[in-house]
Amino acid sequence: MLISELETPALILDRSRLDRNIARMREKLSRHGVALRPHVKTAKSIEVVRRALAGQPGGITVSTLKEAEQFFVHGITDILYAVGVAPGKLDHVAALRSKGADVTVLLDSVDAAHAVANRGRALGVEFPALIEIDSDGHRSGIRPGAAALIEIGRILENASGARLRGVMTHAGGSYSCASIDAIHAIAEQERAAVVDCAAALRDAGLPCPVVSVGSTPTATFGESFTGVTEVRAGVYMLFDLVMAGLGVCAVEDIAVSVLATVIGHQPDKGWIITDAGWMALSRDRGTARQTLDQGYGLVCDAEGRPADDLIVRDTSQEHGIIADRQGRVLHAPRYPVGTQLRILPNHACATAAQHAAYHVVNGNAAIEAVWPRFGGW
Amino acid sequence: MLISELETPALILDRSRLDRNIARMREKLSRHGVALRPHVKTAKSIEVVRRALAGQPGGITVSTLKEAEQFFVHGITDILYAVGVAPGKLDHVAALRSKGADVTVLLDSVDAAHAVANRGRALGVEFPALIEIDSDGHRSGIRPGAAALIEIGRILENASGARLRGVMTHAGGSYSCASIDAIHAIAEQERAAVVDCAAALRDAGLPCPVVSVGSTPTATFGESFTGVTEVRAGVYMLFDLVMAGLGVCAVEDIAVSVLATVIGHQPDKGWIITDAGWMALSRDRGTARQTLDQGYGLVCDAEGRPADDLIVRDTSQEHGIIADRQGRVLHAPRYPVGTQLRILPNHACATAAQHAAYHVVNGNAAIEAVWPRFGGW
Repeated sequence: MLISELETPALILDRSRLDRNIARMREKLSRHGVALRPHVKTAKSIEVVRRALAGQPGGITVSTLKEAEQFFVHGITDILYAVGVAPGKLDHVAALRSKGADVTVLLDSVDAAHAVANRGRALGVEFPALIEIDSDGHRSGIRPGAAALIEIGRILENASGARLRGVMTHAGGSYSCASIDAIHAIAEQERAAVVDCAAALRDAGLPCPVVSVGSTPTATFGESFTGVTEVRAGVYMLFDLVMAGLGVCAVEDIAVSVLATVIGHQPDKGWIITDAGWMALSRDRGTARQTLDQGYGLVCDAEGRPADDLIVRDTSQEHGIIADRQGRVLHAPRYPVGTQLRILPNHACATAAQHAAYHVVNGNAAIEAVWPRFGGW
Repeated sequence: MLISELETPALILDRSRLDRNIARMREKLSRHGVALRPHVKTAKSIEVVRRALAGQPGGITVSTLKEAEQFFVHGITDILYAVGVAPGKLDHVAALRSKGADVTVLLDSVDAAHAVANRGRALGVEFPALIEIDSDGHRSGIRPGAAALIEIGRILENASGARLRGVMTHAGGSYSCASIDAIHAIAEQERAAVVDCAAALRDAGLPCPVVSVGSTPTATFGESFTGVTEVRAGVYMLFDLVMAGLGVCAVEDIAVSVLATVIGHQPDKGWIITDAGWMALSRDRGTARQTLDQGYGLVCDAEGRPADDLIVRDTSQEHGIIADRQGRVLHAPRYPVGTQLRILPNHACATAAQHAAYHVVNGNAAIEAVWPRFGGW
């Protein structure tokens, strides 16, 4: 089957770019002697994640128990559930563990530690848990130096229903860095935060076998991983315009795009209307706060080469409005009704989530495979 | 099953609000003696659409051929595909028509009219088509008065592969009106645009049996439907914060919400962290350009009553950060870890699209049904 035969919108994955992105991250972390624990929340595809895991010593990171279920079915057992666990999900975690999935949970408060330990005791199981550390103030976790760290560590270690497995942090603040130097700095801050917390736990006589960091920008530009046992990253497999805007990848590294078809024009305005709206592209406007605002995505021809200087300037549910970035009025006949275009996404996690499968290409117009994706919880 | 037993995030649908919203629109249009052709792109659920269709003379409106397929399977045959048709989808339309689905296509250019007529002739079928009219400059369609109208009409009517069925417009500009008066005005502009175009076609000796308008705001506030044969609307079934901000509904009319669980806090910042991020809420920030910015959604307690003055101020994939609208630091213990909250969405179409089912409640904590939804193309 050829790209030209696909009904649009459809998600396209360039396998050679995927493989190159995966190899680059693997080589980088392998040079530093630190394990990679790929985050599967971007790809949500066993075929993609198998490629990311090849030769990796670590397991996987998940953001939902659905991801844990789906990858466990395919034989992956070492699973870090890297979102603070809701007490109501502990029975689900226990059920997964009883089937053989070594799911580790995450928490960042005394209350949550008690909830986990109590539920484990009630179920007669032991939940391994990491304590989440807030290394950059962007979201969850306890601040390094907070007294709660040791208190939580003791609750987990002394209760029969839980087991302290270590510390983790996610430098999500790296997504809004203004320069590569700033990413270097936030990577070191991320590393220092968990390494210091691990030392504090050990000084208090508590175990801390896992010291986990990660985000694609800090994994890419981190200069030291001393004291760290594993690095988590996910979007590096596919990449996107936000990562390109940060300087973490080139536009030519972006492995996913949305295939669209031209369905009309507003010639006076220079608009090209396609059938890829926000349902296909997602509502993500992540580049809006970067130097180069890419609208709802950067427009390429059907072969994946950026076309003129076109972006998706606006969307409705099943319509995309493409226009010149500067607002210049283009000659519509260049992209007549029926023309296929490919849109590079702002945010691969959000755009891929709108689709049920990847149509895999490898540098030409042939679809060599269709890799299913899953969604939901 | 009770709401408290649901694993979060989960989509909740309040049946009494749904029924009230549906009845109100039906009564309004019935008073005006005009047919309602519900748009199914918001609900994407046969159970919801059956309720919307009860007692309606019209068929349905769809935004994708997947919607056409899914509702045709349930016996609905009168289907308007209200997005300009890509030539590559015509064989799919023909296949649906050959099975008995009376699918009408939409187009707005001479090129598309030729493509439809030529493909119809090649396949030995006749595609019924509406001409899209641009009544407010917001997206697709030809402007009233443009010479292309009659040219397109003649191509469709004189070719053996197509049949002119009428005109339609969508006053999507109504979504950014600043007042009810402005909605009244855009509704009249919407009506006048298609009625004038229908008259022009008839004056040229062409048939125009269908004169179709629609958007939830203009359907709600339109004062005259003279000359119009049908009104399309979809979000009125569920409603959302954008519609409430426009004055089209009250917050108490919003029938969908996302159930979330508190998983942590940042007490110093007054943040409550939940497990409903943008994957559950969507990235839609439709209220950002309204007077009252609701962030990523308005926070209610588990019973669906707005809680304090909390909004979802930020999201990541599986995290929501809830905070006071004014930035005041609240006492975290009011919403301890494990508390369930319900988030009213900015945009029902986008938020519901992130979920595989509605959990239906009716004024209390019991889930009385689970209604599946579908996605994709």
